Amino acid sequence: MSGATQPDLDLAASLFDELGRATRRGRGIVRDSYGPGEQAAHDILRSAAGTIGLEVLVDAIGNLFMTLPGRDRSAPRIIMGSHLDSVPQGGNFDGAAGVVAGVSVLAAMRRAGVTPKYDLSVMGIRAEESAWFDIAYLGSAGAFGLLDPACLSIPRSDNGQSLEATLTQQGFDPQPIRERRRLLDPARIRAYLELHIEQGPTLVARGLPAAVVSGIRGCKRFRNARCTGEYAHSGAVSRPYRRDAVAATVALLHHMEKVWLEQEEAGADLVLTTGELFTDPAMHGPSKIAGETHFVLDLRSLSDATMEDVAAEARAAAGRIGAAYRVQFDLGASSDSPPAVMDSRLRSRLMRLLDRPFEMASGAGHDAAVFAKVGIPSAMIFVRNEHGSHNQDEAMSLDDFAVGARALLQLLQEFPL
Amino acid sequence: MSGATQPDLDLAASLFDELGRATRRGRGIVRDSYGPGEQAAHDILRSAAGTIGLEVLVDAIGNLFMTLPGRDRSAPRIIMGSHLDSVPQGGNFDGAAGVVAGVSVLAAMRRAGVTPKYDLSVMGIRAEESAWFDIAYLGSAGAFGLLDPACLSIPRSDNGQSLEATLTQQGFDPQPIRERRRLLDPARIRAYLELHIEQGPTLVARGLPAAVVSGIRGCKRFRNARCTGEYAHSGAVSRPYRRDAVAATVALLHHMEKVWLEQEEAGADLVLTTGELFTDPAMHGPSKIAGETHFVLDLRSLSDATMEDVAAEARAAAGRIGAAYRVQFDLGASSDSPPAVMDSRLRSRLMRLLDRPFEMASGAGHDAAVFAKVGIPSAMIFVRNEHGSHNQDEAMSLDDFAVGARALLQLLQEFPL
Repeated sequence: MSGATQPDLDLAASLFDELGRATRRGRGIVRDSYGPGEQAAHDILRSAAGTIGLEVLVDAIGNLFMTLPGRDRSAPRIIMGSHLDSVPQGGNFDGAAGVVAGVSVLAAMRRAGVTPKYDLSVMGIRAEESAWFDIAYLGSAGAFGLLDPACLSIPRSDNGQSLEATLTQQGFDPQPIRERRRLLDPARIRAYLELHIEQGPTLVARGLPAAVVSGIRGCKRFRNARCTGEYAHSGAVSRPYRRDAVAATVALLHHMEKVWLEQEEAGADLVLTTGELFTDPAMHGPSKIAGETHFVLDLRSLSDATMEDVAAEARAAAGRIGAAYRVQFDLGASSDSPPAVMDSRLRSRLMRLLDRPFEMASGAGHDAAVFAKVGIPSAMIFVRNEHGSHNQDEAMSLDDFAVGARALLQLLQEFPL
Repeated sequence: MSGATQPDLDLAASLFDELGRATRRGRGIVRDSYGPGEQAAHDILRSAAGTIGLEVLVDAIGNLFMTLPGRDRSAPRIIMGSHLDSVPQGGNFDGAAGVVAGVSVLAAMRRAGVTPKYDLSVMGIRAEESAWFDIAYLGSAGAFGLLDPACLSIPRSDNGQSLEATLTQQGFDPQPIRERRRLLDPARIRAYLELHIEQGPTLVARGLPAAVVSGIRGCKRFRNARCTGEYAHSGAVSRPYRRDAVAATVALLHHMEKVWLEQEEAGADLVLTTGELFTDPAMHGPSKIAGETHFVLDLRSLSDATMEDVAAEARAAAGRIGAAYRVQFDLGASSDSPPAVMDSRLRSRLMRLLDRPFEMASGAGHDAAVFAKVGIPSAMIFVRNEHGSHNQDEAMSLDDFAVGARALLQLLQEFPL
């Protein structure tokens, strides 16, 4: 296959414009999952796909497929895509960039008169953020029959309407979720390719327009860790008699930072975060030794083994440090999501397609993790983005987008089309 | 002088009984400062003093003086004493033990027919805890004209009545406080001696009935310390790009614990406490890097120089660690109270009077700090007490009390009486 050398950047620019105009509420973007904001984005993409001449199909739970039909319609296809919902007061590019990239690639191929050997689809995925239903990956996990049917009774956070009622009201069908029925057969998907803005500052800091994603970090999170000591007068109790929950927690978290540095030096992928830490406002006081702390310990890595090692060390250190400070740590249960490593052949192909090749882990989750989980070779391209994501100040330049979309087009063309 | 070898322990036991019966509310003791609970305790002591034959006097702001008159009424006197108020739901011994000790000592001397060279007084001090007015040392500081007259408008925490209205209603006179007028002349007080329960676990842990207090620790407290970083996604931002307020705060507090250990090894008196530490509940999240922490740094020492050194190191470390973690520390203003060192001659005399001499700092404040501040040679005896103080479970044995009260009697007898 040949003919298309550039994605249709004019189309991409006008789609970003139209998406922003249609779904901006105040300063930020609101594409509420399974709500009018997300639907507006679907309508815009669907209409563009029609204009280009792509085949359009919406599955039972609302995922949008825009397909350049191949010569062999029964052969496994390639899916490009990302999600079209946003967080409340989010930015214009998180999610949408991947769908727009796919459409701008297929538009260019269509205009060049290319008929691929097999179907090339862009998937506008539903409810990946799912901020309103608090269960991520609704669209992609639903498409593979991976959702727990119990999720249907989750109420939408603002109006209390259940996911099931919301689906039905939007004209979709909750039945496949109820039956854990697959709408997509992994065996019939050759590869999944997702372009997404980077949600951290790495590419900005390194002055790079785009990167290849090595994988999506898994997460092992101790959401409800606690340290129990004994409240006492801060002046009247000297060090050997204290059971100071703050001092012990500081010692544990300081130790875990050392563990992180050691893991990094040994080449492991790891981030370790305590984003919540607090003494009890009903009990603490400026002249009291704290008898209790609550904290979160959030481990993320591309490697399950690294997370297991670090979690085991956290538990062991909690025991040692708890004994030394005469307090009791209870890390509680961890909630775990496995890492999703991107396909190594696709990664190395993508690396060759970048002028300044750079590979990095994704700390945030993406639909690509779901595709990888069901065994589909998956790859991701990150595009530089300022100010992080999930806020109104996302800033991706069209030039950087072009670098990523071009790599996507070239990667497609390296498949036997 | 001779004759009295033992304090009147039967009297002491019956006074503790009567105090407990009169002021117990539910499980705990309530002797509300300048309220009916404190007044009930004053009435009990006053009545006992009358029975013994002590001269009784109440000053303009309600402090009770129970005096064994001396041969020279114009010579400087010795005052023993402590406070008769409690915290809400406090214990039976915090404060009262020192007044009961003084009365049991004077009762024994009176019974032995001793007429001392100069007056020996027991002072039942008003409102040391002042939990209801949130300004400590009302009685002793008021007696020395040290109160800021603005305190008269402080409302009582439960009923909102001002201190001034409360004093007037109880039959006392706010005028001396308004004029900062002294009711006691430091030049006419030879010494101040206070027995008090220990409020920490040291004597229990060491198996000692009593100790000599070396001094009352001063306090330098950074009440509103803050660290400002940047909120970000815990997965998407790797270590070099983080501005993690929790990680930086942990590093600072861990460093300060090392400083504490070094100071202890060098022989300095110091306790260092962070009793409040919290991320912002409106902004933090389990998958967010924390952009802000709030904490307290409470330094206490017998030495002003030690507190100054450690505070300077805290400020310097906040600068260094803030730069390393790319966050901003603001320790804020400190509120300072100076240490009160007890009189060295009285201390060494008391040490010789204990079978198992042991000296320790008091971390909590006591009226003795006020007497020392105005230049009166002051000394304190701590009596072993289980479960700490300021709670319903204070537990002082009469045997331990007897050890302390005996030392008090013997110390009195070493003065030229």
